[in-house]
Amino acid sequence: MDSINRQIDERELLEMEQRYRANFINSLTGFKSLALVGTVARNGQKNLAVFNSIVHLGAHPPLIGMVVRPDSVDRHTLQNILETGCYTINHVQEEMMEKAHQTSARYPKIVSEFDAVGLEDEVIHDFPAPFVKASTIKLGVQFKEKVPFAINGTIFVIGEIKQITLPKDVVHADGFVDLVKAGTITNSGLDSYHVVLDGKRFPYAKP
Amino acid sequence: MDSINRQIDERELLEMEQRYRANFINSLTGFKSLALVGTVARNGQKNLAVFNSIVHLGAHPPLIGMVVRPDSVDRHTLQNILETGCYTINHVQEEMMEKAHQTSARYPKIVSEFDAVGLEDEVIHDFPAPFVKASTIKLGVQFKEKVPFAINGTIFVIGEIKQITLPKDVVHADGFVDLVKAGTITNSGLDSYHVVLDGKRFPYAKP
Repeated sequence: MDSINRQIDERELLEMEQRYRANFINSLTGFKSLALVGTVARNGQKNLAVFNSIVHLGAHPPLIGMVVRPDSVDRHTLQNILETGCYTINHVQEEMMEKAHQTSARYPKIVSEFDAVGLEDEVIHDFPAPFVKASTIKLGVQFKEKVPFAINGTIFVIGEIKQITLPKDVVHADGFVDLVKAGTITNSGLDSYHVVLDGKRFPYAKP
Repeated sequence: MDSINRQIDERELLEMEQRYRANFINSLTGFKSLALVGTVARNGQKNLAVFNSIVHLGAHPPLIGMVVRPDSVDRHTLQNILETGCYTINHVQEEMMEKAHQTSARYPKIVSEFDAVGLEDEVIHDFPAPFVKASTIKLGVQFKEKVPFAINGTIFVIGEIKQITLPKDVVHADGFVDLVKAGTITNSGLDSYHVVLDGKRFPYAKP
């Protein structure tokens, strides 16, 4: 082992104190997509929860996936998605990050996190799930499928993007969306929120 | 519609030109984890491919998932994972981003992307898959399960983290890993690579 590196084997991993391990392992996947997922129960009760596990699944049809942990605050989100068949994905900007984080508190289901954390909801084009008014990029998503992972009880939720609202001036001529200009931030670990610098784009790679 | 926002409905989405839609939809999930996945075929042929769909699945056991598209350059990676049962996940720093992007070119299987793009491989503690020597954070992962998504033919690959190498000074007392200090970058869309600024951490949220 060299002097500046630390090596951790399986035994040390399994012996880590629970909270330490949660912070540590959650950091290892790198920077994560960060979004607020808006839903509504059949009785009209709205819900908002922060997610950092959203991934691109395909462009045609436009499919998006996310990991839901049934033992966490994500539970209300999943219940609502299954009840109503739709949800919204709302990007998070720097000025909303503290409110976004606060949605991870275990509020009872009768509390709307929109109200609890102070984020206004918005209806767009009669889409049945609530959007976050302050978000710059907002997706209306239709639930397609849930895939349970037997290995640890997590559930992968797949949806199709049906409508998009975003600032006119962030879309480049080739379809690329400038997320830095839109103010979208990223997160790492369980609780760290990061502003991102302008990117460098590279051409389609050829051998 | 207000004057600064653009709204895109399902019809406009489906009518987008193919490359435009790929750029556009790939941008909508926000910033993504970025890593080089190292594998080796049974015959010893090494492979390296850039991924931006790695997600945390659980801390105990430490599980990590990633989306593999069977029609892409990821194919060799998946073949090797299934043949050998293991792979490595290596974070990408700014000085490696162009080489990381270049691994997305469709090299024939007899070419090692380590050689083709100029990244040195490294063996750590006899782990059977090759690491990227220049990466600051490196995970040795054991394949656990592949879950095919019938909806579009993508495959979700689940693995368990078995060993970790990272700089000693990036791990905080509570287990949080400072990815900015480690130099880890993020990406957006299909081809944009971004440096990230120091984060702000918030305490565990309570109602």
